[in-house]
Amino acid sequence: MQRRFEDLGIGTKAAESKVRLLNRDGSFNVRRKGLPFLTWFSGYHYLISLPWWKFNLIILFGYIAINALFGAIYFAVGLDQMAGIDGHTGFEQYLECVFFSTQTFTTVGFGRTAPVGIGANIVASLEALAGLVTLAFGTGLLYGRFSRPVAKIMFSEHAVIAPYEGINGFMFRVANQRKNQLIDVNTTVTLSRLESHNGTPARRFHVLELERKQVTFFHLSWTVVHPIDESSPLYGVTQDQLEASDAEFLIVMRAFDDTFSQTVHARTSYKAKEVVFGHKFKGIINIGQDGMTEIELDKLHDHEQV
Amino acid sequence: MQRRFEDLGIGTKAAESKVRLLNRDGSFNVRRKGLPFLTWFSGYHYLISLPWWKFNLIILFGYIAINALFGAIYFAVGLDQMAGIDGHTGFEQYLECVFFSTQTFTTVGFGRTAPVGIGANIVASLEALAGLVTLAFGTGLLYGRFSRPVAKIMFSEHAVIAPYEGINGFMFRVANQRKNQLIDVNTTVTLSRLESHNGTPARRFHVLELERKQVTFFHLSWTVVHPIDESSPLYGVTQDQLEASDAEFLIVMRAFDDTFSQTVHARTSYKAKEVVFGHKFKGIINIGQDGMTEIELDKLHDHEQV
Amino acid sequence: MQRRFEDLGIGTKAAESKVRLLNRDGSFNVRRKGLPFLTWFSGYHYLISLPWWKFNLIILFGYIAINALFGAIYFAVGLDQMAGIDGHTGFEQYLECVFFSTQTFTTVGFGRTAPVGIGANIVASLEALAGLVTLAFGTGLLYGRFSRPVAKIMFSEHAVIAPYEGINGFMFRVANQRKNQLIDVNTTVTLSRLESHNGTPARRFHVLELERKQVTFFHLSWTVVHPIDESSPLYGVTQDQLEASDAEFLIVMRAFDDTFSQTVHARTSYKAKEVVFGHKFKGIINIGQDGMTEIELDKLHDHEQV
Amino acid sequence: MQRRFEDLGIGTKAAESKVRLLNRDGSFNVRRKGLPFLTWFSGYHYLISLPWWKFNLIILFGYIAINALFGAIYFAVGLDQMAGIDGHTGFEQYLECVFFSTQTFTTVGFGRTAPVGIGANIVASLEALAGLVTLAFGTGLLYGRFSRPVAKIMFSEHAVIAPYEGINGFMFRVANQRKNQLIDVNTTVTLSRLESHNGTPARRFHVLELERKQVTFFHLSWTVVHPIDESSPLYGVTQDQLEASDAEFLIVMRAFDDTFSQTVHARTSYKAKEVVFGHKFKGIINIGQDGMTEIELDKLHDHEQV
Repeated sequence: MQRRFEDLGIGTKAAESKVRLLNRDGSFNVRRKGLPFLTWFSGYHYLISLPWWKFNLIILFGYIAINALFGAIYFAVGLDQMAGIDGHTGFEQYLECVFFSTQTFTTVGFGRTAPVGIGANIVASLEALAGLVTLAFGTGLLYGRFSRPVAKIMFSEHAVIAPYEGINGFMFRVANQRKNQLIDVNTTVTLSRLESHNGTPARRFHVLELERKQVTFFHLSWTVVHPIDESSPLYGVTQDQLEASDAEFLIVMRAFDDTFSQTVHARTSYKAKEVVFGHKFKGIINIGQDGMTEIELDKLHDHEQV
Repeated sequence: MQRRFEDLGIGTKAAESKVRLLNRDGSFNVRRKGLPFLTWFSGYHYLISLPWWKFNLIILFGYIAINALFGAIYFAVGLDQMAGIDGHTGFEQYLECVFFSTQTFTTVGFGRTAPVGIGANIVASLEALAGLVTLAFGTGLLYGRFSRPVAKIMFSEHAVIAPYEGINGFMFRVANQRKNQLIDVNTTVTLSRLESHNGTPARRFHVLELERKQVTFFHLSWTVVHPIDESSPLYGVTQDQLEASDAEFLIVMRAFDDTFSQTVHARTSYKAKEVVFGHKFKGIINIGQDGMTEIELDKLHDHEQV
Repeated sequence: MQRRFEDLGIGTKAAESKVRLLNRDGSFNVRRKGLPFLTWFSGYHYLISLPWWKFNLIILFGYIAINALFGAIYFAVGLDQMAGIDGHTGFEQYLECVFFSTQTFTTVGFGRTAPVGIGANIVASLEALAGLVTLAFGTGLLYGRFSRPVAKIMFSEHAVIAPYEGINGFMFRVANQRKNQLIDVNTTVTLSRLESHNGTPARRFHVLELERKQVTFFHLSWTVVHPIDESSPLYGVTQDQLEASDAEFLIVMRAFDDTFSQTVHARTSYKAKEVVFGHKFKGIINIGQDGMTEIELDKLHDHEQV
Repeated sequence: MQRRFEDLGIGTKAAESKVRLLNRDGSFNVRRKGLPFLTWFSGYHYLISLPWWKFNLIILFGYIAINALFGAIYFAVGLDQMAGIDGHTGFEQYLECVFFSTQTFTTVGFGRTAPVGIGANIVASLEALAGLVTLAFGTGLLYGRFSRPVAKIMFSEHAVIAPYEGINGFMFRVANQRKNQLIDVNTTVTLSRLESHNGTPARRFHVLELERKQVTFFHLSWTVVHPIDESSPLYGVTQDQLEASDAEFLIVMRAFDDTFSQTVHARTSYKAKEVVFGHKFKGIINIGQDGMTEIELDKLHDHEQV
């Protein structure tokens, strides 16, 4: 079925790689070379994707660095231009300049220490402006970090191949980790494997037909099923053949996040070794004593021999 | 019609529950277990979904707590490091430290009380930074709360089953509560009920065909109609049968909100008891004396015997 | 053609109204009654949609009111709790309290006037907090006002009915007023008119087929054409018949705004009287002396007899 | 094939222009005339699209101008209304007013210089308000600048026409310059050229069929191919004919940006001269020594004779 061969924008050279294409966390195993740093680097992007502990450290050390610098400038401009510097040693006086800088940068402005000369006043004016611009930038950055809709979809650790309505089926299980509702969830599964093409092995991509491509609600778990009928590229394939062909199942899920009112994506992949033959997933949905439906998310990965 | 049986990502175990799946307000009756708190909890999410009175209380008490804490720190660091503390008793002096803290945290910085020692200056520098970061975070949070597009679609209290173009129809009525325009409004109605499956009752889901699935404008009310023809799973079903099968009608509406330029969703459900047989909705659209079309939204729920 | 009769969520009662349904500016002529004020009113919505001059006045007078109020509170708490009040008369002293309030609310905090008593300090702490919360709210509001993607699509003042490829066509012309690019622009035209339904006039809605429903680019003008062939509800209709049937053409355009990366909508309508028979639009696209394409947007409305 | 002739909202007059319609950077070569400045000008739009160096200069000079102005106002209101002005000459006193203005506008408020008269206090109150409103506006503006999702898609400098699966193909190559993932990338290629229409040349637009219109992933390069079969408007066309007909290939790409969770667009065009006959693109994807896939983005433009 020619129609179901769908390239994913990947050249045939990738065929030779045995490294997985898509990591479990959805990132790609691709090295990008040849562009100057500034062409692809975006500071905003970088700061928005940083883990929180790094982000907080950057704020703290940035704050210290800025004030150490401005403190030095005030000190260099001259203490005669500053009122309220009481320190006896040069270091004490420098520290007072640093503290004055923090009061200016944050616009606290106690005024006990204050600029009186023209030079110090100019520096203080610019530092206060810099403080406000930084605040404006930081506000946007924090909002950007928080408001980025990120789907936290849990994928089962393994996929399984098990009997399904008379034939076999390739299956994996997903659930929403977060409490926010995902609506109109849609899944694409692509099989990537080496195939003999005029005698030489070449990597080929097959979009697999799913029993159901979309669900309206996603408040419980969803077992995504590809029925292995005669039209399936997995028809009659054994575990050994699957591994020999360096198979990888690429998963993309799209959904509408009800809290952020935005479309979100999640990606993952299963390599041949992560597919368990002859197993099925254990039930994780129960009815509580109060009649309420319960889902045990910690058992999402559990499967058992058929 | 196999095509119209569409699972909603809900395991068959849910079949045993008699508790409604979807609450009237659109939330799901599902208990999620087994994930550690931090995996699913998102502080931003929590603060964004909180009712206003709780949100305001959190701001107020958080502010008090922060200043009580920083006041204690200044007091502990030592009053000799602070200028302008005039209190006679320890409590008065502590209060002055608290007020100094509020002036620092909010960056007001009157300066009447001011840090003079190195320790107090360091604490004040960090508190001013904390104040700005909190402001930045709070700004994003407030914007997040306000700008979240929330459709306020009113659903009629009951659905009705009444004659419709020669046959019967399952109907409910909706209107937009807000003044903002909703465009390209689209509805999905799914019937969930217990059916005998090889002798045992199992919960099944049927997507119901609608007379009209989408409307371009939604400035008046819309009566959504599922015609009960021979292909309908409701064909020939009596009120008793509907209740016996624990039927629930799950409604999802999607629309484009013209004010926020974003897609919004609304959900609700009708249990069998909330469906009134042989009733129809009363008219709520009139022409005013000035020729203007009027809609009486307080009568949206009104229905009468046919 | 039953398929092309598409209700727009408007009850048949609207049939009796002769007032236009959709105003030229895209707002609806509908009065909404019966809901308590707080159900449908959203302060954020209101402030976001307000014209700029009203918005600015609200800021200014709100600022004055807040400070007049807080000034009164400081005055009432007692001048002995304030340092730096030098006024001789009560009015002067009250004014100084008001100015102190502005310094606190904006977190300027000069400190010349400063709270010294516990009561005044508490009020000042709360006022500074209120100032920051207001700033946070105002920031979100301003961003909300600016970042709302609003399509400024110019619609020709009149629609025309003129010969088009052998038959007649209903046409109107649109152009993008703004410099930002609109992509994938899509148009729906619905004819609303009174038709005899079992002898009584009833309002009916027809979605009109367009020669082209979507264009990829929209950097020049676009003449939207509905060819009046035999399947058209306008086939053979004269100007008198059009007016007698109280016809109104409802236009909705959807597009992707390239600057805001969001979907935008524009709406308008043409009543029968705004449709000119036997006229066509004059050309407004020229090639400048430098070979550049030019569009004369001020002539968008111009039409001439065929 | 009438179906594949698709006008792009461009009048036939554009036919006479030999200037390219779409620039390489995706902007249009169209001059818009006849609208008053304020109709189409949007300050927010302007400030959001400005290059960074201009934006920063505007902030800096705006800040200087505002304080020069407010300094003059304080000076004019009278130095007797200000405490803490120590300057001997008028210029020194004016400078002190300017510095006081910066302290008020940024809400630093050291308080060494402070308003004491009613007039100066009123001006300072309003300036502090202006400062906060500017901060709120600036925060939104900075966030708007950063959060605007801009696809940085690299297009190969030339398109090529080369043998492709037995026939010829029109091809160009694209890659994502940024590190953020683009999903569901979709391409439209439109050929614009002069054709003889009843003897006179008229510009016509043809949407070209692509071997693949959409790819799910876009982490490597993608060679977009239009197979020149018998149904193609390029069938049998030579390089000379292509240039003689003033051909231009208009490219639009749409994608979902995973970092911003928004849809993005990219546009470019190839004029006949930018199409190289009988060349094909050189490979740019390799497998590194560690088995990782590598893409050499600096060689994206490279092509060689077949």
